[in-house]
Order: sequence, then C-alpha cells, then structure tokens
Amino acid sequence: MTLLENPPHVITVGASLLDEALAAQAVRTTRVEWRPPLPGTAAALAQVLADPRRPAANSLAATRLTTARPQLVGVRQAAEILPHGTFLHAGPPLEWERASGPMRGALIGAMLLEGHATDEASAVAALASGRVALEPCHHHGTVGPMAGVVTPSMWMFEVRDAEHGGTAYCSLNEGLGKVLRYGAYGQEVIDRLRWMDRVLGPVLAAALKITGPIDLRSLIAQALQMGDELHNRNRAATSLLLRELAAAVVEAAPRQAAEVLRFMNGNDHFFLNAGMAAAKVSTDAARDIPGSTLVVAMARNGTDFGVQVSGLGDRWFTGPAGIPDGLYLGAYGPADANPDIGDSTITETAGLGGFAMAAAPAIVRFVGGEVEDAIAATRSMYEITLAEHPAYQIPGLGFRGTPVGIDVTLIARTGILPVVNTGIAGRIAGTGQVGAGLVSPPAEAFTQAINALAFGK
Amino acid sequence: MTLLENPPHVITVGASLLDEALAAQAVRTTRVEWRPPLPGTAAALAQVLADPRRPAANSLAATRLTTARPQLVGVRQAAEILPHGTFLHAGPPLEWERASGPMRGALIGAMLLEGHATDEASAVAALASGRVALEPCHHHGTVGPMAGVVTPSMWMFEVRDAEHGGTAYCSLNEGLGKVLRYGAYGQEVIDRLRWMDRVLGPVLAAALKITGPIDLRSLIAQALQMGDELHNRNRAATSLLLRELAAAVVEAAPRQAAEVLRFMNGNDHFFLNAGMAAAKVSTDAARDIPGSTLVVAMARNGTDFGVQVSGLGDRWFTGPAGIPDGLYLGAYGPADANPDIGDSTITETAGLGGFAMAAAPAIVRFVGGEVEDAIAATRSMYEITLAEHPAYQIPGLGFRGTPVGIDVTLIARTGILPVVNTGIAGRIAGTGQVGAGLVSPPAEAFTQAINALAFGK
Repeated sequence: MTLLENPPHVITVGASLLDEALAAQAVRTTRVEWRPPLPGTAAALAQVLADPRRPAANSLAATRLTTARPQLVGVRQAAEILPHGTFLHAGPPLEWERASGPMRGALIGAMLLEGHATDEASAVAALASGRVALEPCHHHGTVGPMAGVVTPSMWMFEVRDAEHGGTAYCSLNEGLGKVLRYGAYGQEVIDRLRWMDRVLGPVLAAALKITGPIDLRSLIAQALQMGDELHNRNRAATSLLLRELAAAVVEAAPRQAAEVLRFMNGNDHFFLNAGMAAAKVSTDAARDIPGSTLVVAMARNGTDFGVQVSGLGDRWFTGPAGIPDGLYLGAYGPADANPDIGDSTITETAGLGGFAMAAAPAIVRFVGGEVEDAIAATRSMYEITLAEHPAYQIPGLGFRGTPVGIDVTLIARTGILPVVNTGIAGRIAGTGQVGAGLVSPPAEAFTQAINALAFGK
Repeated sequence: MTLLENPPHVITVGASLLDEALAAQAVRTTRVEWRPPLPGTAAALAQVLADPRRPAANSLAATRLTTARPQLVGVRQAAEILPHGTFLHAGPPLEWERASGPMRGALIGAMLLEGHATDEASAVAALASGRVALEPCHHHGTVGPMAGVVTPSMWMFEVRDAEHGGTAYCSLNEGLGKVLRYGAYGQEVIDRLRWMDRVLGPVLAAALKITGPIDLRSLIAQALQMGDELHNRNRAATSLLLRELAAAVVEAAPRQAAEVLRFMNGNDHFFLNAGMAAAKVSTDAARDIPGSTLVVAMARNGTDFGVQVSGLGDRWFTGPAGIPDGLYLGAYGPADANPDIGDSTITETAGLGGFAMAAAPAIVRFVGGEVEDAIAATRSMYEITLAEHPAYQIPGLGFRGTPVGIDVTLIARTGILPVVNTGIAGRIAGTGQVGAGLVSPPAEAFTQAINALAFGK
C-alpha cells in the first residue's frame, strides 16, 4: 500500500493559507489550532520549559496564592507605614517628567492636601524639583487604584493573610467622578479627602476594633456569586461589607455614624480598595519562589504597564500602557483617554476582575459587550493560568473556580494576553473619570520577563 | 397517487405506545409532544378558551401585574389595620380545629404575646373557644410568611403601588430557627417579638420617614441580578435594603441604631417580608378583571393550599397542602415535616421565588438539586405564564424577564403546576423550621378554578 493509494487526509497546522487552498479544491482537512509563540520568546521558552525547578515552583506559587486567607484587620494612617517625605503612586517606578496627566493631577492634589503647596503652580514646581520622593505603592506592601497616590495623612485598609502571615494596604475609596485617583484636584476633591482623613478613617479604624477581623476571602467568594467581578463591579461586596460594619460604626462613633454610612452607601466601589489589598496580600504570598514563572503583580502608572514574576524578585518588566477600549461617559471619547493606569490590575493577578467577568454578566454592558463576551473572556484566561481558585467560583460556569495564577510561559506559548477591566482616566490633569473598558498589557512586558527567566537579563 | 404509494410517514400524538411500536418496526415517526389536559378540565377548558373577554382581560391583568411599582412607604403597627379582636393567619380561611401543628403553635405564641393567655393551656382553651377571630391575611391586604400570624402589637411593612395606587402589608421578619412563623412559641420567641414591637418597628418607621419611599421594584430587579430569587434567598436584597436604611436608622434613633442594624444584618431573610408585600400589591393590581384567568394569589395555611383568580373575585379554590421535597436541617427528616404553609407563595404568583430559580443558582444546593434544575424550573414556568417581567430579569438567561402571570387555562392545558420554593415547618407545634425545599400546589385547586370560570360553580 502506498501513501496515495487512498484519498489523502491532510492535517494542517499554523497559517490558514494551506488549509484554505485545500478546502477550495474540496480536499478534506483536519485543522490543528496552533500559533507560534510570542515573537522573541521561542528560545527563552524552550529554556524555561526545560527548567527542572519549574513544575514544583509553580505548584507551590499557585497553592500559596489560592490558599491565602485575606482578612481586613484594621484601618491605619499611611504616615505609620510611609517613609518620611515620600508619596506613593500606582504602577512601576516613575519620575515626574514622565508622568501622565492624571498622575500629575493626583500628585498636585496630594501636595495641596498635605499643605506642601498652596496652589497648582507651586505644587508643580515642588514636584518637578523632586522635593517629595515618589515611590511605587508595590514597594511598600501597598496598592492604589488609578493614580494610586498615597500621602501620609490618608488612611488605608490593612489586610492580613491569616494563612501565610503577610500584610498589605490600600487607601480608602473616594467615590466616582471628580476624585484624586482619576487626577482631579479641585477644592471639592481636597475637601472630601480632608473629611476622609478626619472622620472616615478614624471611625472605620474604631469600628474594626469592635468587629474584629473581617474575612475578605469569604466576602469576595460571596460577591462573585452576586454578580461582582471585584474590579469594575463591587456593588455586592460593598453591600456585604457595609452591613458587617454598620452596627460597629454606630457603636464606635454615634455622632458621625450617619455621615460615614451615607458615604459608604453612596459609593458602590467602596469595597474595591479592600479587595485590592486582599488580592495584593494573596499574590505576595506567591513571591520569590526560585524557578516560578507565575505573575505576582501587574500594575500601571499611566505611562508604563509593568509586571513582576515570582522567580524574578522585585524586578519590573514594562511596556507602554495601552488605551482601554470601552464606553465613555457623556461627551468624552477615546481622544480624551489617558493610557491605562492603576494598581487595580492586582485583582486580575489574583483571579478576579477581567478573569472573573463571567461572574458579572451585568458588567459587560458597562464596559461594552454581551454576556457571551464575558464568558469567553473568562474561558480564555484558563489558557494562561495555572489553577482554578478553590473559593472564588462562578455560578454561570457551574461553580467552576476562577482562572488564577498567570503563567508567563503560557502567555508566551499561546500569545493570549491577560484581560483587564478598568476605569478610564481623562488625559488632562484635573479631568477625572471619562469611561470604563477593557485593556491588555503590552506583550513586551512578558517577552522581557521570559527572557529574564531564561537568560537572567 | 394513493396514500400508500410512498413509504408512510407517521405522526404520533399522545401516549407513547403507538410511537414505540412503530419505532420497533423501523417505521419513521414524527412525535408530537402532547398530553391531555388536567383530568376534569376538558369541558371547562373548551368553554373558557372560547370566552371572548379572555384575551383582553388577561392582557390587562398581566399588564397591571407587571407595571406595578411597589414602594416601601412606611412601617405601621397592625393595630391600625386589624379589626379589633382579630388575629390574621396565612393561607385560605381556617378554623382552630383544622389547624396544623405550626399554625397552632404560632397562634398560642400570639395569645401569649398579646397577653390574652398566660400559658399554653389557657391559650389553647381560649383559641378553641373562638375568643379571638381568625381571618386570612389576604382578606386584609396583608401577607405573612409560614404561619403568617399577625397580631395587633406587631409592626408591618407598608408597601404602596405607585402606578395603580394599591397598598399591601407584611409583618417584620424574626430571623431563622425558633421563631413564631415556624410555630415556635418559647420565651425566647416572645421576648424577640416584644423587642420587635418596642424597638425594631418604631425605629424602622422613623427611619423610613427620613429616607422617604424606597423603590422595591428596582431593589428586587437588582437582587435578581445578584443571585436572589426573593423567596428562599434574600441575601442581596437584605443587603441592599440595609445599606439604604442604615444612615436614616442612625439619625432616627442614635441610641438603638446599633441593635437594629445588628438584628437586620443577622437575618438574611429580613427583606423577604418587604418583597412579599411588594408581590402582594403587584398581584392585587391584577384582581377583579372579568373574564381573566390569571392567578392573583396562591397561599397555604398548613392544611389547605388555596388559589384566587382575577376573574373570580375573592373566592378561594383549595386542595390539601403537600409535603415539600427538599433538604432537612440536622437530624430532621420528611416525617417531621408539616404540610406546606405560608403566604410566601405570593412571590411565585408575582414571577419570583420558584419562577426565578434560574437567577439563584446557589439556591438549588439549599433546596437540593443542580444548577440545571434551577434553569429547567424557570424555563418550564414560561409554559404556564402570560408574560415575561419587563424589570425582573435573569442574567443567566440572557436577561430574559422572569415568567409571570400564571394562567389557569395554561395549567389545565399542559398539566404543568407552579414551582414553589419554600421553608419547611416542623409538624409538631413549637418545633420551628426543619428544612427547605420545593413543592407544587394540588392540581384540584386549579381544576376547581377553571370549572368555576366556565360554569360559575
């Protein structure tokens, strides 16, 4: 029997040209879904996949990430944690010169809030002269949404990992609209921050002393079953947190309880920052495992998108931050959008946000799209993750765990990039929020990371 | 050409015997899904389907039901609404002699609460002698879960239909476990009811004066998108109501706010009773439309299951209440279960509860079953309903409206009975809750109703 005695059955791989040409000649083909690895990763990928430490290292990293038990244990003023004369910002390291509009706006507001400047011009001059040190939140166990600027007077959620012992912080959420984290710094913004410093922070701190630790792992798990994905939708989680705290807020501060509860009720993203600190303390548990290719941070400073990898310590691998694709508020459009900004991608890094879109069908209307898009987004993330979260489950997928533990080798191999849900800040300092949408990290951040894993450079 | 010139193509209808016999002989058949109407309804069904008033009457009834805009406008003491010397109970009319264990237990507790008796024996004697008049909640614009006993000292949610102007009431929810509505009447039960009379009711009444009306249509619509079906699961709705009320509770009663908020937070069914009043005021909007075959109430008193139909005024059509099929708490089992009890089937009558099971995949674990069962339950209810609710939507079904507006002719025609989610009360007075599950109304209630529609008897 020779090869061509029977009709040929052709298996096609790679570019579709061959397959299409055969189909046009009525030849039966079997198409194999395959694409080449990300450009510039083939050699590194071979090297890293052959690393004998990798399977055990990734298994340990994924297990530590998914077994973390984040608990909200307190609310503390940032001055207790920050080095003197330092402001924190979102994303990888950034200098004033390279800062985008909303980051500059937030830093100007921070100078006014802290009394380091009396007007915009003097704030800009002081910032340009380097009078205040700027450091990434992530370098201080902290995360911050959007501009993520944290100054000494601000209060922060303190979240402890009851399983592995880590601690992480995140500032308190200001609400939507004209707010510092979106780069607004008008008087209303400063006044609100002063009220948060004077009333909200101390009252919440006192209330948490009454309630004791609040189990955020359980609260996040429940919120996922109530339509939140914990990045762009936090209505359920905010409601659950408010009801847990309400009685203690009254007992801690009877005279201020009404304004505190009204503020929390007025902001459906109130939980976001607690959830971000929970995600941060969980991913931190997976850090510094030699040979692990698991992503432990994704963060944007409005100029660069950076990632950190467990086996590579505190090194950042960056590329230019993209413009989110989404829906815009009022008359705003893509031309008004700043590149992607904020540490809130820590939610995706921990298996929430864009990775949990299928849990939040309502969110797709907010970021543009259909329910099927949300399910497809989550499904595709299983391709680049090492685990399914044992506690964070998606009812619409038969209670399957969310995809969690992004693996740089799987990204390099498939070319699939993480899906990120995000708010969109106005490009001009002082504008505030202009929309919300989806964005992907720049591929080169992962290309650099896998080359560093392979060749240490 | 004769009939049998070509191979026969047989269309089979009804019992499967013919179809199976042909299939065994390799004859190709097309099977028509058909079953005979409910026994005893064929003649009446023909009559009612020919009633020229029916299409317009049902269209009006369904429209009134689905356009109702229930708003929580107040909390009032039942004494303002009840006739003097009267206790209300769930379901169709019932005398003490025919009352089941949990109904008797709740009535005994009510006598103790109101100071009409000092112990169980004197309460039983007084009830047996008819010293207190017993009337259905439904006869006084009211609904009550489980035993549904309402006495003058109790406070009730007051819900107004902002579209059609109706008003409905429901008592305040006591929580789970040993509670009056499940037939428990120990000292802890009476003490809790006294606290509700003295603190909870007046504080909520004062808080609602501060908030103004709360839009329950919006709140229910949101809760359906957050995993509640509003009968056996009310966690989202309770959370949303608590956060709306919290600041006003503090302002209304600074010294009692903490205990009130703690009580609400401790009871995930706190919203159930507000939702029941919302359902009642919505179905009441569809009452008394001549020729309409739409069901406006389903209710159980622990002995009988009764239904009321729009075109038939206040007449009840009843059959024996069934034993729910579900999961039992602790060591309890089916032998401990009382027949189905409570007015909470008003939620199903308004397109919620069992009809909205697909919105609450988590509930199926509570009542026994799988996610697919929840979806199948909701899908089957579209077969016996006249409309899809424009505001109450199910994310998992692509935001399709819940099936709403049960039509007696569709039940008679298909034999499909409404699906009801329910708690299960212990059979013995004083026991409390023993489980939760699913139950169907007795078919004869609908058989009687359609015969009354056809022949006026």
